[in-house]
Amino acid sequence: MRRIPRIRVYGMEQITGKNNDRVKDAAKLVRSAAYRRETGRFVTEGVRLCLDALTTGLAPLAAFVTRDRLDRSEKELAPLLDSAGRAFLIGGDAAAKLSDTQGDQGIFCVWQMLDKSGETDTIKDSGRYIALENIQNPDNLGACLRTAEALGLDGAIVSGGCDLYNPKTLRASMGSALRLPVTRVDSMTETVPALRDRDFRVYACVVSGYDMTVLEMDRTAGLVCVIGNEGNGLTPQTAAACTGRLTIPMRGRAESLNAAQAAALVMWEMMR
Amino acid sequence: MRRIPRIRVYGMEQITGKNNDRVKDAAKLVRSAAYRRETGRFVTEGVRLCLDALTTGLAPLAAFVTRDRLDRSEKELAPLLDSAGRAFLIGGDAAAKLSDTQGDQGIFCVWQMLDKSGETDTIKDSGRYIALENIQNPDNLGACLRTAEALGLDGAIVSGGCDLYNPKTLRASMGSALRLPVTRVDSMTETVPALRDRDFRVYACVVSGYDMTVLEMDRTAGLVCVIGNEGNGLTPQTAAACTGRLTIPMRGRAESLNAAQAAALVMWEMMR
Repeated sequence: MRRIPRIRVYGMEQITGKNNDRVKDAAKLVRSAAYRRETGRFVTEGVRLCLDALTTGLAPLAAFVTRDRLDRSEKELAPLLDSAGRAFLIGGDAAAKLSDTQGDQGIFCVWQMLDKSGETDTIKDSGRYIALENIQNPDNLGACLRTAEALGLDGAIVSGGCDLYNPKTLRASMGSALRLPVTRVDSMTETVPALRDRDFRVYACVVSGYDMTVLEMDRTAGLVCVIGNEGNGLTPQTAAACTGRLTIPMRGRAESLNAAQAAALVMWEMMR
Repeated sequence: MRRIPRIRVYGMEQITGKNNDRVKDAAKLVRSAAYRRETGRFVTEGVRLCLDALTTGLAPLAAFVTRDRLDRSEKELAPLLDSAGRAFLIGGDAAAKLSDTQGDQGIFCVWQMLDKSGETDTIKDSGRYIALENIQNPDNLGACLRTAEALGLDGAIVSGGCDLYNPKTLRASMGSALRLPVTRVDSMTETVPALRDRDFRVYACVVSGYDMTVLEMDRTAGLVCVIGNEGNGLTPQTAAACTGRLTIPMRGRAESLNAAQAAALVMWEMMR
C-alpha cells in the first residue's frame, strides 16, 4: 500500500527560500515587540512551547515546519498541524530566519494573543499574585512567571515594558507565560489602590526605605507583592500606593538582588 | 597656571584605531573562555566593575579608557589609572571592539586571575556554601553569586562549565564573582565526599527522587547545597555522593525552576 505523502495529509503548502511574505511576516513578529502589539499576534518556537500554547485552547493561525523536524516529530506535531489555520513546509534558510536562537528548532507557530489588558476582574479575591512593574529583561520576566507557576501563585499582574510575547520571555518561562493567568495593566500605580479596595494586602518590594522584612508580611488576606524595574526599582508613586514596603534582609556586601531572584524569594515567602 | 594634560598625568599611551595588538589581545580575552584560561587573564568593563576588581586587591595589568569616559569619570578612575601597569587612551572603535554589549562603557581593565583551583582548604569549617556543578548560562551563574553574597553565604564552589570570568558572569554578578570567595574544583563528585569527611552536610538539589524538602535540611553543621546544570540537573554520581537529596516543593504545572531561581530559594533556606 502506498503511503500518502505527509504534506498532503496535513494539507501543507511548500515554501521555498526565505523571502516568502508569510515567512517575513512571522520573522517580524519574532523580532519586533511593536509589530506584535500592532497585530496582536506572536510566534512560538519549538515542539514543547508550541504544544504548550495549544493546550491553552488556542489554535495556531499558521504553522511552519522543516522536513527534518516533521520526520523526527510527526506524531507530536500532528495535533498542531491538524488545528493550524495553514501549515507550511519550509527549508533551513527560512527556519533560521524565523528563529531567535542559533540552531533553530524547525517548528514555529503564529498565534493570536489573548487580550488580557485590564482584566483585573479576573483577579481572584484572596488570591496570591506577583506584580511586575516594567521588568525589561525577558529572561527575568520569563523566570518570574515560571517560578510563579511552579510555586502555585494564582497569577501575575504586569505593566510597562513587560514583554510577555517576546520569544525570550516565552522560552525562559518554559510556557508559563502562556499557562499562568496574567493580567496586563496600563498603570501599576493606579492598579494598587484598586486592589487594596478589594482587601488585598499589596506590598512594595524595596531595597531601602522599608517598614518590614519579607518575613513579616500579612498573609491572612489576598496578597500581591510588587517588584520593580531591574535598574530603577519601583516607581515612587507605586511604592507609595502600597499597604507597606518590605525588603529581603541582606547580610553581604552585594547591595541588592537581581529582580528575578528577589521575586523568587518574595513568592516563596508568599506561599509558605 | 597651565593644566598638565591628563594623558601625561597618568602616563597614558594613545592608541589609534582598533587593530592595535593590545586591543586585539584584550578583545580576545573578552570573547574567548579558552584564551582566558590559557593566559590566566580576564577583562572587566565599566567604572563600577573595574573599581570592584580593584578593591579585591588586584592591580590592572592594563587599562583602556576613552576620552569621553576620562572626561566624565576622571576622579573615580584615578586609582585605577594610577595602579594600572599600563594605561591607554583609546577611540570609540576600539571601545566598541572591547565591549561585549551594545553601547560600551568606555573603560576596560585587564587583570590576572587569582588561581582558585582546588583550594578547598580555604573552605571554612561550619561555613555555608553554594556548590554549582556545570552551570553554563553566565547570567545564571552571575545571579547565583550575587545572591550568595547578598544573603551572606561564606562562598561558592564551582565545577565544570561555570565560567567565572565571562564578561556576562561578571556583569550579572555585579562584582560578586570577584568579591565572594569562590573555589574551583575539577570534580564535584570527588569534592562532595571530601566535604562530608569534614563534617559538612552536603545536599543535592533535585526535582525528583528526593528524600526531603528544602525545609528539612540539617543546618546545625557546615552546610553545602549543590545545584546542577540547567538542562540536565546534577550528575547522578554527584547526587549519589551527597548526604541527602532535597527538593523545592512545587504546586503548579511548571515542572521545575530555572537553576538560578532554585539556587536563590535554597540559599535563602540555608541562611534562615
